[in-house]
Amino acid sequence: MNFLKDFTMEDTFFGKREELLSSTILPYQEAAIKDQIPGAAKSHAAANFEAAARFQKTGRKTEEFYGEVFQDSDVAKWLEAAAYSLLKTPDAELKQRALELIHTIGEAQYPDGYLDTFFTLKYPERKFTNFQDAHELYCAGHMMEAAVAWHECLENDELMQIMLRNADCLYEHFIVRKNPGYSGHPEIELALLRMYKATGEEKCLQLAEHFLNARGQDPMYFLKESKARDWQLGNTSFNTDPYYAQNYAPVRKQRKAVGHAVRAVYLYAGMAAYAKLAGGTVFSDDAKPAGGTGLSDDAKPAGGTGLSYDAKPAGGTGLLSDGKAGDAEMAEACRALYESITTKQMYVTGGIGSTYIGEAFTTDYNLPNDTVYSETCASVGLIFFARRMLDLEPLGEYADTMERALYNCVLGGMQLDGQRFFYVNPLEVDPAVSGVIPTHRHVLPKRPKWFGCACCPPNVARLLGSLAEYAWGRTKDTIYVNLYLAGRLELPDLGVRILADTGGYPYGGDLFYRIIPERPGKCFTFAIRVPAWSRNTRVTCDGKNVEIKDGFAYIKGPFMEETKVTVILDMEPHKVYANPSAAADNGKVAIQRGPLIYCAEQADQEADLFSIRAEEDGGIHVLPFDEKTLGGIVPLELDARAEGEFDGLYSFKKPEERKCRLRLIPYYAWGNRETGRMRVWIPE
Amino acid sequence: MNFLKDFTMEDTFFGKREELLSSTILPYQEAAIKDQIPGAAKSHAAANFEAAARFQKTGRKTEEFYGEVFQDSDVAKWLEAAAYSLLKTPDAELKQRALELIHTIGEAQYPDGYLDTFFTLKYPERKFTNFQDAHELYCAGHMMEAAVAWHECLENDELMQIMLRNADCLYEHFIVRKNPGYSGHPEIELALLRMYKATGEEKCLQLAEHFLNARGQDPMYFLKESKARDWQLGNTSFNTDPYYAQNYAPVRKQRKAVGHAVRAVYLYAGMAAYAKLAGGTVFSDDAKPAGGTGLSDDAKPAGGTGLSYDAKPAGGTGLLSDGKAGDAEMAEACRALYESITTKQMYVTGGIGSTYIGEAFTTDYNLPNDTVYSETCASVGLIFFARRMLDLEPLGEYADTMERALYNCVLGGMQLDGQRFFYVNPLEVDPAVSGVIPTHRHVLPKRPKWFGCACCPPNVARLLGSLAEYAWGRTKDTIYVNLYLAGRLELPDLGVRILADTGGYPYGGDLFYRIIPERPGKCFTFAIRVPAWSRNTRVTCDGKNVEIKDGFAYIKGPFMEETKVTVILDMEPHKVYANPSAAADNGKVAIQRGPLIYCAEQADQEADLFSIRAEEDGGIHVLPFDEKTLGGIVPLELDARAEGEFDGLYSFKKPEERKCRLRLIPYYAWGNRETGRMRVWIPE
Repeated sequence: MNFLKDFTMEDTFFGKREELLSSTILPYQEAAIKDQIPGAAKSHAAANFEAAARFQKTGRKTEEFYGEVFQDSDVAKWLEAAAYSLLKTPDAELKQRALELIHTIGEAQYPDGYLDTFFTLKYPERKFTNFQDAHELYCAGHMMEAAVAWHECLENDELMQIMLRNADCLYEHFIVRKNPGYSGHPEIELALLRMYKATGEEKCLQLAEHFLNARGQDPMYFLKESKARDWQLGNTSFNTDPYYAQNYAPVRKQRKAVGHAVRAVYLYAGMAAYAKLAGGTVFSDDAKPAGGTGLSDDAKPAGGTGLSYDAKPAGGTGLLSDGKAGDAEMAEACRALYESITTKQMYVTGGIGSTYIGEAFTTDYNLPNDTVYSETCASVGLIFFARRMLDLEPLGEYADTMERALYNCVLGGMQLDGQRFFYVNPLEVDPAVSGVIPTHRHVLPKRPKWFGCACCPPNVARLLGSLAEYAWGRTKDTIYVNLYLAGRLELPDLGVRILADTGGYPYGGDLFYRIIPERPGKCFTFAIRVPAWSRNTRVTCDGKNVEIKDGFAYIKGPFMEETKVTVILDMEPHKVYANPSAAADNGKVAIQRGPLIYCAEQADQEADLFSIRAEEDGGIHVLPFDEKTLGGIVPLELDARAEGEFDGLYSFKKPEERKCRLRLIPYYAWGNRETGRMRVWIPE
Repeated sequence: MNFLKDFTMEDTFFGKREELLSSTILPYQEAAIKDQIPGAAKSHAAANFEAAARFQKTGRKTEEFYGEVFQDSDVAKWLEAAAYSLLKTPDAELKQRALELIHTIGEAQYPDGYLDTFFTLKYPERKFTNFQDAHELYCAGHMMEAAVAWHECLENDELMQIMLRNADCLYEHFIVRKNPGYSGHPEIELALLRMYKATGEEKCLQLAEHFLNARGQDPMYFLKESKARDWQLGNTSFNTDPYYAQNYAPVRKQRKAVGHAVRAVYLYAGMAAYAKLAGGTVFSDDAKPAGGTGLSDDAKPAGGTGLSYDAKPAGGTGLLSDGKAGDAEMAEACRALYESITTKQMYVTGGIGSTYIGEAFTTDYNLPNDTVYSETCASVGLIFFARRMLDLEPLGEYADTMERALYNCVLGGMQLDGQRFFYVNPLEVDPAVSGVIPTHRHVLPKRPKWFGCACCPPNVARLLGSLAEYAWGRTKDTIYVNLYLAGRLELPDLGVRILADTGGYPYGGDLFYRIIPERPGKCFTFAIRVPAWSRNTRVTCDGKNVEIKDGFAYIKGPFMEETKVTVILDMEPHKVYANPSAAADNGKVAIQRGPLIYCAEQADQEADLFSIRAEEDGGIHVLPFDEKTLGGIVPLELDARAEGEFDGLYSFKKPEERKCRLRLIPYYAWGNRETGRMRVWIPE
């Protein structure tokens, strides 16, 4: 089964965003990588492949490489997103253009499978000598993910064949010839595992396993690699920092999320996917999956000893307590790393990465709101990681984290019209400071046009295009609702349809699911998430209460007739308090309603935003849904006090205050009006 | 007159610090510059001069230069501080060693007067080609200040002769040969003006005037200078930034304090000193001062049109309203720059410089407490600047600023035992973060040992050694009390003694001054500052109330008999509020009592410091003077609430709170116990 194909979205909130993907985001990004946008930073990403293809044909270099060393990945991410979009919104011309691009990519490949336009055009003799910075394996990984998407969504294997040849080339280099190295920027690990699950090609699994096993065995590996060559790329100081690229220890020994946040969560996602696969004798012949969805794990090899939760032993956690568990160490590392992020290093918006220096994690509870990095890609990667943790262990909190990152940081990364994107997602902005002074130069108060480095926009695009994979989950006998998307899920093998009516979610909290057996139903369990933010949730099945466990409500089949599952979420808004060790939030509150974190923008206030404090015992007022504002929102108002005029820099005189209401909008919608001050954490 | 000589300190608070200068600070710093401290970073500063002297004698280089390009200035600042110390605490052996060093400096000088060991030993052919980074003029300036100190305190002119030869060399290069350039790091401007006032040597005045006039005429000057040479030093990106070194506009047109904070205030101090001198026909023959103190301006040239306040025209500001004022533009720029700092860019501790990137000012109201730079040297320089503004215009607020910077940031820069120093003076510290993560690496939670770059310790030393020059001021007919130091001031030319009994200041606020005429007194006015922080001040003269104007109480002579002036300051502690635009302080209060800003350290709290909030309507409790703690302090306690245990990172549950008292100590005393959290601004 394949949720991308089997689920049809009919969601008021995400439907329009899915529509933006085909109407706006993909065309804009296609024009960008083809240098067709006047005034935008030159990309040359498509042209690099064309030039490399000409070089393969003629042996002559007619054009220089241009762009970042990872420019190829922009093409890959666009192709991946295009596959998702084409599945739902067929467009013969778009498909034709994409296939031409894929064809060019094939022509740009060396006969041995090597593919990377930077090295092909610039320094062929330097290939495979700089895994720290050169992003060869990272670009390959993204192209592999695109190949999986074309394979699964469009049954087109042209790119898959190219990337299987590329995997052969890597297999030859790393496994056969035993050359050292692994990617400074993880990504290929999770991509190879998707390739393996899609095709059953064992070389992909072996390579992924090799990269994971090799990482961090020698924390000084990148430094040695750097000294072994007479050329460098970029900021080589990171070479000496084994935390930056998460190779400070073998991955199974890692417990703290460190370094470049995107690299980290891509690695951890690969680790979690591997831990799930490694549930048993993964190299035995019967372990080859028959092809699958890449993300959902119905393809779990037969005969395994079981990390899947339907197979949970009584009394244990299911994850580590099974003595026969294949790679318990890997699973344990994943859980520790997940906790390191979500219980110590995550912004309330689901953003991660506290500093622009290395775009990195810093230390526990260091969560500055104004100098934050919180890259959109990092939250996309956190969703990848949490989704794979859900596969390992069906705890609702993993889905809560996906939801937090998706509805707040990731959606906030995109302008409402889909035309502009943030890389950095601050929780406090002052246009006099943000984007202006050196320590805040990376924090922009409004979304800019296409960047020279364009990682985030296509990452958002491919996530929006494949939301069904995140919203739904499945083990052998359970269907999971992880995220609440309205629509229709067909499960042909179970002979069942599931209709999801999620009302005005995330603004409304009354969810209605109908399980409709179309032929005598197989026995399976329907599990729907009960989010931790809902303090009082009522789940009923045909009017009867349902047992809730570890963040999911389980309704056991068989379903002989239509069955109604109703989830009434508690949509009371709440003040959120932060741990006192998070010094930046001391004495402040954030406001959350449903999955949405709110923020205050200057545009909505009569007084200076920075002069307004929440009343300690004040209420939060829920205003009616306002369809005309910011694409439709439920605004909130907070009982507050505003200071009067303040004279000078410091004063002994307590500023005069008057009661007021602080108007709040969902964080994802900020920065869509005039530029002004914004903050999530409000002094109380 | 010369306050350094004429004032004898008998102050409980500063007396022990003056004593530390001779007992601890000077010996330690001497050992440091002579590389006699085991385990400390190598300085080589004295050895550089010895090597340069050998080179001048033999023409052979026997030893490499070692250290920062401005290493010579460590020797200069030490020599300056030594002169102040030797005046009060004679020490024949110390003086002998200092004179040997001065002798070596003379031997290291080229016959034409050029002096700089970096260029002498390393790159003689490169001299005078990199004024942006090479600090040649900066080092010369510091050595000139040392020369003035030896001239004025010890009547020893050996160093003065050396530096007058150096001034000749510079005069030849810049004035006679009209070569372009001015110092990337200002300092020589104020130093040359001190030389001029001490010796009357017109070349010094002309050079200072030249450097001030040339600065910023071409904001791209340093970029052009950089392109004209084939070598660079340090971070050349600053070359392209005309704000970094305050050459974005001609100095008289500058209105916003920008760039490297130490450079800025050194420049502004030079500008203010020049504006004062330029009160008239400074180049006329009668303008030569007869020698003076360098800082106090009894040496104002006769016949001027008057920027001195005794000559203030009725109804005007005195500064700019006099049409004949010599350099009103310069004075106006100084005032604007002073206001730019103190009303928009100064920490409540008197610290300046909000970012470590360029050690610089950022933008108005950007005053982060944890990533702050607030270099000790910058506050020393702010005191230099404010002192010279007082000479321009007797407004108490200039003295208030000196006091704020001195009693808080500068004193906090030094360990109580005088053995260790901070460069960076944060207003919030968390040892898990400060000094650890990249954006906070410069913010140390405890004072380190001697640095390789040792600018701050000797800067504090020379300030502590010359406090009398800051505490007292004089115009032709007025004696000013700027800072309250207990002691005895002899004024032989007026035939008067002033005895200052300042009680337990800064902890006590009852000040008693006795004006004792020893022979029929000349007519003069005694003016004593009334600080703005004292909301209710009573000043009486022999029991009668006294008029207060612009921050000074004026008592007019003649004084025919002993006259008692009593100042009763309001020592009530206050909560300080910050302008809402200072986002880092929103919803927070600082606590001030007298001139002292307080802070809270973890060591004094029963609960986690970061979990404690001030009660909005709570009081501040003044505890008895505690002579056993931190060298003797008056602790304060603030009515507060502490949160109970907090589980996890975020919570909807309002943390349980219990009433408590937050214990506060003076900011200057922080970091003298075990390392822990500290903060000045307390959430309320």
